[in-house]
Amino acid sequence: MSQTKGNFIAGIQVPTLLINRAQASHNIQRMAQKAHRAGAILRPHFKTHQSLEVGNLFKPFGIDRIAVSSVSMAEYFAHGGWTDIMIAFPVNLREMDRINKLASNINLGILVSSPGVMPQLVQQVRQRVRLYVEIDVGAHRTGFHPADLFRIREALQQAAQNPKLVFAGLISHAGHTYQASGVDEVAQLHLRAMEQLHQVKTELLPDYPQMVVSWGDTPSCVVAENFYGAEELRPGNFVYYDLMQWRLNVCNIQEIAVAVAAPVVALHPERNEMVVYAGAVHLSKEFSLCSRNIPHYGMMVVMNPDGSWEIPVALCFVRRITQEHGVIQLPENLMNGFSVGDLVGILPVHSCLTADLLRNNTIILH
Amino acid sequence: MSQTKGNFIAGIQVPTLLINRAQASHNIQRMAQKAHRAGAILRPHFKTHQSLEVGNLFKPFGIDRIAVSSVSMAEYFAHGGWTDIMIAFPVNLREMDRINKLASNINLGILVSSPGVMPQLVQQVRQRVRLYVEIDVGAHRTGFHPADLFRIREALQQAAQNPKLVFAGLISHAGHTYQASGVDEVAQLHLRAMEQLHQVKTELLPDYPQMVVSWGDTPSCVVAENFYGAEELRPGNFVYYDLMQWRLNVCNIQEIAVAVAAPVVALHPERNEMVVYAGAVHLSKEFSLCSRNIPHYGMMVVMNPDGSWEIPVALCFVRRITQEHGVIQLPENLMNGFSVGDLVGILPVHSCLTADLLRNNTIILH
Repeated sequence: MSQTKGNFIAGIQVPTLLINRAQASHNIQRMAQKAHRAGAILRPHFKTHQSLEVGNLFKPFGIDRIAVSSVSMAEYFAHGGWTDIMIAFPVNLREMDRINKLASNINLGILVSSPGVMPQLVQQVRQRVRLYVEIDVGAHRTGFHPADLFRIREALQQAAQNPKLVFAGLISHAGHTYQASGVDEVAQLHLRAMEQLHQVKTELLPDYPQMVVSWGDTPSCVVAENFYGAEELRPGNFVYYDLMQWRLNVCNIQEIAVAVAAPVVALHPERNEMVVYAGAVHLSKEFSLCSRNIPHYGMMVVMNPDGSWEIPVALCFVRRITQEHGVIQLPENLMNGFSVGDLVGILPVHSCLTADLLRNNTIILH
Repeated sequence: MSQTKGNFIAGIQVPTLLINRAQASHNIQRMAQKAHRAGAILRPHFKTHQSLEVGNLFKPFGIDRIAVSSVSMAEYFAHGGWTDIMIAFPVNLREMDRINKLASNINLGILVSSPGVMPQLVQQVRQRVRLYVEIDVGAHRTGFHPADLFRIREALQQAAQNPKLVFAGLISHAGHTYQASGVDEVAQLHLRAMEQLHQVKTELLPDYPQMVVSWGDTPSCVVAENFYGAEELRPGNFVYYDLMQWRLNVCNIQEIAVAVAAPVVALHPERNEMVVYAGAVHLSKEFSLCSRNIPHYGMMVVMNPDGSWEIPVALCFVRRITQEHGVIQLPENLMNGFSVGDLVGILPVHSCLTADLLRNNTIILH
């Protein structure tokens, strides 16, 4: 990742992720303020950007604890100087050597997300590590059922057999907010999920007074104001936002801080389509729906020479993608402004996946 | 990419693409025989694997010409010793310096896929390069309309202004075969597409007697026997196949030569689901449909210690994926055989995208 100034899009040859630094910083600031209002620590999820350089944008806001979603990401950020990292993914027992090694160098947090893991984990943890127990508050991906206090307590009793395994608290990810129809439903899902998590906390607190609650997902962290005293907020996507968040009304289109710069490689005015070099291996095959409920893989923006971008009056979407091709539908008057060899921008449907794919081809705009 | 023998799955810690070398070689052999029967050269599309090591599997079958879908892939394979490479993607005018450099070292082919490109291309080509003109035979992604002989001839006349730009022939990719309901429809689409392409060839041949026809897409190359005298077949996916090809009946399930080894990280018997470390950043978000038309992101297979795999009697699919998580639905009796920390295999929906994502985490099994 290189940093560049001024008029530079002439130098872009291949699909490249452009990061609007000022907007990303603004997005971070707003979330830091939100966490502060809620009396919570912001532990941003760095899986969204996976970048030390973007990580640095968080530091002016006092951020010193982060979450990641793999051991290798934790190794990368630990190597880059971050000292308090939670691997917010069910502990992978096949990586215990790497986990123990990491835990000897930093303040490491790991997750247990289902019964049956603890007996093996207790045997294999050799360094002090913070243990979070994941509670499934409705996303039905991972986590103990909130009503299954018997198994939650059993897991904690098993954990107590290894003094290196220090119970830190509960973690939940209300990922089902992504399926909501808009902010009102996000708020409803959030409340229902928070109530379930809070009930588990209330049950356990007398026995584990030091425990905290770590709460994730960008939609609910943006929309809600009441976090029931959760000690940590753990959203990730908010640093960039994307068209999924925009569709939920969680962000507005100007708050999206990333676009993929894509070379125009063919023009087909007879069918109002332009083909760009930006396909599934750059954007990902994540799709969203536009207003007429037609699937799309991104929204076209017009690039300025300095790397900033503008939304055209008529919204234009990437209608089809294959491995390296993206096909954008656009009206004739807009099409006429383009030649093969030009560059357009594409706002991604899911910035985490696009940023992962373009990790080695990213530019932060100052 | 490392090569390993014997009992080795104990060493796999993270999502890893396993390649069944014998099956891949068998798939290559069958396609090479098919091309031979058709009197065509096989120019396999290496975008599927993007690997010099997998490329070596083609050499025993006399393959010395390849297609790729980006300049960087062409550079990679040229560096690895391949000397006849077609970049089967509309020429990206922003990479002309790299294209000229490549063309000075190898026999390079490039594509022009729409009107309006040639004037700039004629100015910028400085090294001898073979030019293919892409014809849209129904996929409506890129290519000149087959009826638009005026513009096709115009492009060829423009090309003739630069003697380094040598017209080699026509290229088509009948990508719409992927939308077919099965092999019968693939065969029908193939015939209709081939007729269109052949008609363009017939028109141009008197003026360009050296021109060839290059024909792509795995479904039609597997299903069809009549290629109307096409000089080149250019499929890519057939080396691995995948669940998209299987759904089309283009391959059988045993012919799929790749599986993703995925650590089991959580078991949820209460909802018949297992969570694995293998998500959108490993498998891609490409989905297919199972027999009940429910979307899925891959099929679970049972791993043997030597890295081979078995299809369970009850087919089990990856029902949901997020960035790093995959959720597999499986019946209770099968679930009972697994513990957290085990490894399962996942046959990919679209092996090209999965192989791209796991390029740095691939093992060829001998």
